[in-house]
Amino acid sequence: MRIILDGMGGDHAPDEIIKGAVDVADLIDHEIVVVGDEKQIEKALEDAGADAKKFSIIHAPDVIENTDTPVKAIRQKKNSSMVIGLETVRDGAGDLFISAGNSGALMTGATLITGKINGIYRPALGSTYPILGMGKASLLLDAGANAECKPHNLLQFAVMGSIYAKDVIGKVNPTIGLVNMGTEPGKGSTFLKEAYKLIESNSEELGLNFIGNVEARDLPIGICDVIVCDGLVGNVVIKMTEGMALSISHLMRRKFSEGVVAKAGAALLYGKLAEIKKAFDYTEYGGAPVLGVKGAVVKMHGSSDATAVRNSIAKAVPFMENRVVNTIEKSMKKISEIFGDVEE
Amino acid sequence: MRIILDGMGGDHAPDEIIKGAVDVADLIDHEIVVVGDEKQIEKALEDAGADAKKFSIIHAPDVIENTDTPVKAIRQKKNSSMVIGLETVRDGAGDLFISAGNSGALMTGATLITGKINGIYRPALGSTYPILGMGKASLLLDAGANAECKPHNLLQFAVMGSIYAKDVIGKVNPTIGLVNMGTEPGKGSTFLKEAYKLIESNSEELGLNFIGNVEARDLPIGICDVIVCDGLVGNVVIKMTEGMALSISHLMRRKFSEGVVAKAGAALLYGKLAEIKKAFDYTEYGGAPVLGVKGAVVKMHGSSDATAVRNSIAKAVPFMENRVVNTIEKSMKKISEIFGDVEE
Repeated sequence: MRIILDGMGGDHAPDEIIKGAVDVADLIDHEIVVVGDEKQIEKALEDAGADAKKFSIIHAPDVIENTDTPVKAIRQKKNSSMVIGLETVRDGAGDLFISAGNSGALMTGATLITGKINGIYRPALGSTYPILGMGKASLLLDAGANAECKPHNLLQFAVMGSIYAKDVIGKVNPTIGLVNMGTEPGKGSTFLKEAYKLIESNSEELGLNFIGNVEARDLPIGICDVIVCDGLVGNVVIKMTEGMALSISHLMRRKFSEGVVAKAGAALLYGKLAEIKKAFDYTEYGGAPVLGVKGAVVKMHGSSDATAVRNSIAKAVPFMENRVVNTIEKSMKKISEIFGDVEE
Repeated sequence: MRIILDGMGGDHAPDEIIKGAVDVADLIDHEIVVVGDEKQIEKALEDAGADAKKFSIIHAPDVIENTDTPVKAIRQKKNSSMVIGLETVRDGAGDLFISAGNSGALMTGATLITGKINGIYRPALGSTYPILGMGKASLLLDAGANAECKPHNLLQFAVMGSIYAKDVIGKVNPTIGLVNMGTEPGKGSTFLKEAYKLIESNSEELGLNFIGNVEARDLPIGICDVIVCDGLVGNVVIKMTEGMALSISHLMRRKFSEGVVAKAGAALLYGKLAEIKKAFDYTEYGGAPVLGVKGAVVKMHGSSDATAVRNSIAKAVPFMENRVVNTIEKSMKKISEIFGDVEE
């Protein structure tokens, strides 16, 4: 199969992107097609010692910047690496598109260029949410693509998340939780009560292992495999996780350098502190899938270095190999049979 | 002035409640009236060596349990310590009511018994949100009383939060932030966009130091003094903070006991680790004020021990002394003049 890599997206493109791709190329049995400025990509591939048999290039002279407005960028920058990459997947010449570029543009581009899966109202951005200290991750969706949602959107997120957790993360019968302000079924806003009922009452028919409401305090310990919420709550969960990890690590650094005794203690704990730091490291857990579009599309963190790129590509391979998009399409047909046409 | 203390609410009532009250009694220049079962309270006061001049008792034979339904409990348990305590404040025989009992019942009771301040649509539960490692706190509201809000509710939360931050926490010109999924003014749902505009456009007239949208990742470092959000987002922020602190501390405990070297390091860092743990400790930062009702009402954590009770009472004193409720009443008059009657 063919992985289409955006060679120009991200803070460290193209060099770190290419390095990461070269690192992972030998471990996977697929061709990598890099989209971007031919000269720059050629040089980066050469510098990284790429195996010519594994790599090819599609020239794209233009780049979508982080400062570009998503819809405008996708419509106007027809020769950008992102637009050409997505078109390559749409046209069947590629099986996965992966980019560290502008998130909004990637979400918009995936929706406009590859198209929404029939029956999907709103594609979601999934985020691999780290379970602290366990080296494992849950999938959270929506991670911020949809600031407001309706109950039916959350049902679709549950279905797509469950498929992804099964076929990409490798969970058996993944548990699904709805983020709420208490675990009892009657908790939360009208929207959350309705979403709860909708997911609950269709779980059996749709093969969902719905465990009900989950509280935010239990997310870091991995209370469920699939975390379902609207994009605002999803954003708050992810940003709180980052913010807490960062402030605690700052606090530790400060406290552990106060005085000779503390410094000696910290020196002895050096390796353990590095392990703790690694538990917070998003780059360990792979990229964020765009779910609900007619192509396997993965967003890498904008600041991805070679290691992050390598991990993101490696972890995205089953998304493509296991034809997750087809499975989601089938599930949406089933949802349409149950609900008919719902306008949301 | 007279502090009315619920002697029966909370996991460790009455003993720890009374101990905390006795600890703080000498530090404050106010009488403490304990509401609860006379015999139990008398014994607890005696055991704690209370100064008889500082304490008196109002007998209340009944107790609202954590398992009670809020509205039903307030309506039916007329002789409970919570209902009698709130009535004492309503009738002017007390200036502050503080309880570690059932949160929902306290919120309902405060609203039904003392009554909403004119012009307030929804009273809010404030939460003193710790700024990690700084020994300081922001005020977050709503902390979970209102699962769904309208833009006008958030404007009122901003006004009430600003007054509380000034007059109780002691901030000069407190900064106010709206929790959103990005800092740009146009971010988020329709609800958040409207709330932003409403607060922004009335900041000058209402004397609000509104700094705009804030991201969840910046909350633990104290990006603003007053954190404004609906009750669902507020609950997620608080629970994520607790959950992350807890999982990181578990992770540290595990990592720091792996092997002799790590154990030695951890032993040297014993004091610093205790300081870090303390930075997460909610009981250090005082109780949660109910804002928007015609009485100074404070919720203590259900698991409060004597230290938490002592801190909560001490930190709540300016709420009463500075007549914060009156200041909120005046502000709401001003809001009514600007907006007329808004139905929300």
